[in-house]
Amino acid sequence: MAKLTANPGGVAADQLRAFVERIERLEEEAAVINDDKKDVYGEAKGNGYCKKTIRKVVQLRKKQPHEREEEEAILDLDMHALGMAGPGEGDG
Amino acid sequence: MAKLTANPGGVAADQLRAFVERIERLEEEAAVINDDKKDVYGEAKGNGYCKKTIRKVVQLRKKQPHEREEEEAILDLDMHALGMAGPGEGDG
Repeated sequence: MAKLTANPGGVAADQLRAFVERIERLEEEAAVINDDKKDVYGEAKGNGYCKKTIRKVVQLRKKQPHEREEEEAILDLDMHALGMAGPGEGDG
Repeated sequence: MAKLTANPGGVAADQLRAFVERIERLEEEAAVINDDKKDVYGEAKGNGYCKKTIRKVVQLRKKQPHEREEEEAILDLDMHALGMAGPGEGDG
């Protein structure tokens, strides 16, 4: 850290250090949120829910219904074309 | 959203919705932090600093000095072996 603490650039070094420290603080906050997310997933798992499925639901809820339906229809077609599912509801 | 709002699973659906919404809230908070980071980088850039370099400094500051020195020494050796740098300070 010599360059950042020995004040070789004076004001410039102080300003640079301020930017670096702001980024570091934001990354710490992001890490806390990440831990919180892990906790929620852990709690859900403890209640018998599947982490993967919840993640998928969260993803799907970001999309508009028509987007979701269109993507599902294309996925069905592709899976059917590849012999991965029968017509209709897939392998359900 | 039919499955989540039509209450087919009663309590289980409510509990699942609660987990999903907690994750969504945390993801929103994470998105805000991400925007803040972008703003800081943008501000740094506006003050003549290089975003890439700041990102690198933030990364390096997470490491212990001896870790950093060891990695630098290995990088120097590798670059030298590949003819990418002279001995000593690299291409500086």
